Amino acid sequence: MAFNNKIAPRSVDLSDWYLSVVEQAGLADYGPVKGTMIILPYGYAIWEKIVAFMDHEIKQKGVENAYFPLFIPESFLTKEKKHVEGFAPECAYVTIGGGETLTERLVVRPTSETIMYHTYAKLISSHRDLPLVMNQWNNVVRWEKRTFPFLRTSEFLWQEGHGAHATKEENYEMVEWGIRFYEKTFRDLLAVPGIVGKKSESEKFAGADSTLTYETLMPSGKALQSCTSHDLGQNFSKTFEIKFQDKDGTSKFVWQNSWGFSTRSIGAMVLAHGDDKGLVLPPRVAPIQVIILVIRPTEKLDIQAKKIASELKGHGIRVKIDSDDTKSVGYRINDAEIRGIPLRLELGQRELDQNQLTLAKRNTGEKLTFSVDQIVSQVPQLLETIHNEMLTKAENFLNENIRDATSYEEFKQILETHRGFVRVFWNQSEESETKIKLDCKCVSRCLPLDQEAKQGKDFQTGEPSTTQWLFAQAY
Amino acid sequence: MAFNNKIAPRSVDLSDWYLSVVEQAGLADYGPVKGTMIILPYGYAIWEKIVAFMDHEIKQKGVENAYFPLFIPESFLTKEKKHVEGFAPECAYVTIGGGETLTERLVVRPTSETIMYHTYAKLISSHRDLPLVMNQWNNVVRWEKRTFPFLRTSEFLWQEGHGAHATKEENYEMVEWGIRFYEKTFRDLLAVPGIVGKKSESEKFAGADSTLTYETLMPSGKALQSCTSHDLGQNFSKTFEIKFQDKDGTSKFVWQNSWGFSTRSIGAMVLAHGDDKGLVLPPRVAPIQVIILVIRPTEKLDIQAKKIASELKGHGIRVKIDSDDTKSVGYRINDAEIRGIPLRLELGQRELDQNQLTLAKRNTGEKLTFSVDQIVSQVPQLLETIHNEMLTKAENFLNENIRDATSYEEFKQILETHRGFVRVFWNQSEESETKIKLDCKCVSRCLPLDQEAKQGKDFQTGEPSTTQWLFAQAY
Repeated sequence: MAFNNKIAPRSVDLSDWYLSVVEQAGLADYGPVKGTMIILPYGYAIWEKIVAFMDHEIKQKGVENAYFPLFIPESFLTKEKKHVEGFAPECAYVTIGGGETLTERLVVRPTSETIMYHTYAKLISSHRDLPLVMNQWNNVVRWEKRTFPFLRTSEFLWQEGHGAHATKEENYEMVEWGIRFYEKTFRDLLAVPGIVGKKSESEKFAGADSTLTYETLMPSGKALQSCTSHDLGQNFSKTFEIKFQDKDGTSKFVWQNSWGFSTRSIGAMVLAHGDDKGLVLPPRVAPIQVIILVIRPTEKLDIQAKKIASELKGHGIRVKIDSDDTKSVGYRINDAEIRGIPLRLELGQRELDQNQLTLAKRNTGEKLTFSVDQIVSQVPQLLETIHNEMLTKAENFLNENIRDATSYEEFKQILETHRGFVRVFWNQSEESETKIKLDCKCVSRCLPLDQEAKQGKDFQTGEPSTTQWLFAQAY
Repeated sequence: MAFNNKIAPRSVDLSDWYLSVVEQAGLADYGPVKGTMIILPYGYAIWEKIVAFMDHEIKQKGVENAYFPLFIPESFLTKEKKHVEGFAPECAYVTIGGGETLTERLVVRPTSETIMYHTYAKLISSHRDLPLVMNQWNNVVRWEKRTFPFLRTSEFLWQEGHGAHATKEENYEMVEWGIRFYEKTFRDLLAVPGIVGKKSESEKFAGADSTLTYETLMPSGKALQSCTSHDLGQNFSKTFEIKFQDKDGTSKFVWQNSWGFSTRSIGAMVLAHGDDKGLVLPPRVAPIQVIILVIRPTEKLDIQAKKIASELKGHGIRVKIDSDDTKSVGYRINDAEIRGIPLRLELGQRELDQNQLTLAKRNTGEKLTFSVDQIVSQVPQLLETIHNEMLTKAENFLNENIRDATSYEEFKQILETHRGFVRVFWNQSEESETKIKLDCKCVSRCLPLDQEAKQGKDFQTGEPSTTQWLFAQAY
């Protein structure tokens, strides 16, 4: 991989910066088909860390993994009216297979509700079969006109969980579990804080009764819908005839939920933490947590580097040794910074003689000095500290960029001056949301779950309101 | 999941048996599109065990995972003449995306050589970039007319490894590593023995110089090409212009290999080990290794069951407790047998009072009696024994079904009477292979790597030959 060390300045143009970092850190490349993306090893290794964490949590919850076909008969998709309206414009269709024109077009899955629930109807007959919750790790296709690596690509990787439950209440508990599980993943793994809330009627998932979302705020001041969990009610069970005989002997439709988390999360993480030097990776997903940079390598230094690396690996730390003396030290430091490696240990003969090794923290640029004996015991704690510092910094940015408005004028002014989230009392209506969209290129992001009940007035109509929504321009 | 306990007898019709076992054990179901398959949780859990083992080995070898797009421009596939001839008839084409007819048809990947090597050409410029070896875990589509769950489906899951190397020799080492890695996986994980060998010219991969294969023998006497590793030579590097500057300053084309292992392996495992009662799972991939069947459950018995289960889990054993007294003991034993669970512990009050617990081995039906204290320490060793017994049994079957023929008459007679592998001296030629295919519905399977050099005569022409090939009818 060639690094030409030309990261576009982040402060000048965030999009240019993002594209150059994604390329130069070796996270991803463009696919030959417009809108598709190649996830290169360094980017894929981050996804593997996310998958490992999430898959463990999913299994702990008792959800089982399965795999459903990529191709969905078009007739399945059209069964649920709102679902097909939402997805049809984004679909890719297979029309030729095995040398013949197909009698029915096949949709390349944009999401798997319809094909899974066709099978759920066969697997469920009694209350003893419930809850039935399956998860898939797979690829989905949604044709996009404007694409951006990780954040919006025509094909992406994700997990999609699908639950069927006996009662409305138990079902909603699962919808909430889904979004809280995502919140945990974003905070604990990616150090990306966000707001958990409910989508408005016009912004909810096509086919859902309601949608919970995790909204993050990017340094541009634009929001990103980072993942969602849907309460599907009985919309699909009525369409796909998923019934069960309850304990009381009556036949009932199941209640359903679905929840998805994708490679978009990597884009959110890159945007949230990076700086002018490149990526800044949260330690828990960093493919390399510590790079040992050997300065003017000698046999003695290499042995010392391997000893330290081996001890760190023994503590479960991911380490890489860089002894490549065909490149300058400056170039190698630059490279480690572009790739966002959380800790850099500089190991030279002088440092060894003085028994003073330097650890550089990627997130703050701080340099800490330790004796050789201290290094191994310090690293795990330092990685924790870095995670916490990154999360706190991002939380501060988020909190500083939630501003209250009481009138539409004030609302528009905040958007123009600061972007960020604008918090308003709002009695949602489709007409008002359409108007705001036209005026401000902005829609409601969510009605946050974690806020106290308050009394106020709708920011447009002045009517009494108890619901405080967040609005923002978005990716 | 409903079990009606109607496993078709294996001895009467292996295909019927196979289909009923796949369904009733809950491994898979048919997808709505002809030729596609739903991998249900019990089947997917087996695949996850295989993936975990293989992914670890792949990483140990220093190979990095990545992800390339599902959609390949048709022009990519047609670049390598033999490659497209082999794959085009099996391809599915996307012709409509985002509501518009596409200007170029997109192939849903049947394999990723072309799309990956397009990128390899960008990543490789110097000998320092080599070897470059990436692996993908993904789904591929090959349109099939005659399908069979796991063994032949229009979409399947697999890994595909792709290496680019500086020299022909280093490249071939990787081709061999690939097939030996698969042999290890089949033997050590799935207890399925096989023959490692080279494919004939007419049977090799479309676009390869040569193909190594792992050929297994199913109880029907038919062979199964279980996985392959290809020496691609410089065929693709010349087409995709993958060049590097060597140490001597000259520009050279890289040497390449690719190797794939798929969900077909699960089909091979099911066929190889099952019996009239259902699945027999090799312990290392069994999602449940021990089922504790509580007979006439009481609170005291449940506590004892949980205690044993917890101790077994502490030893890394996968355990399930079945305390479902709404079903008869007979039904529950039957169910555990259909699902192929390696060990069944029967726990009743009488057994506990007498301090004599019975462990039933699924593979042999043997029942072993232990005191309560002995159980936990016995299970790990017993699971190892079961694996070894299953492998030995399958090896004996394989060895007993390799028969030598010295003439075409003898060859045909063996195929008619016994099926199985027929071993012959053969100086391969396309004409002779075509004739054999017409006469016997049978092609060469491979030239085994692990055999001593011998002198003989070609079984058809009588000419001197030193190459002993295996032939068989195949899936």
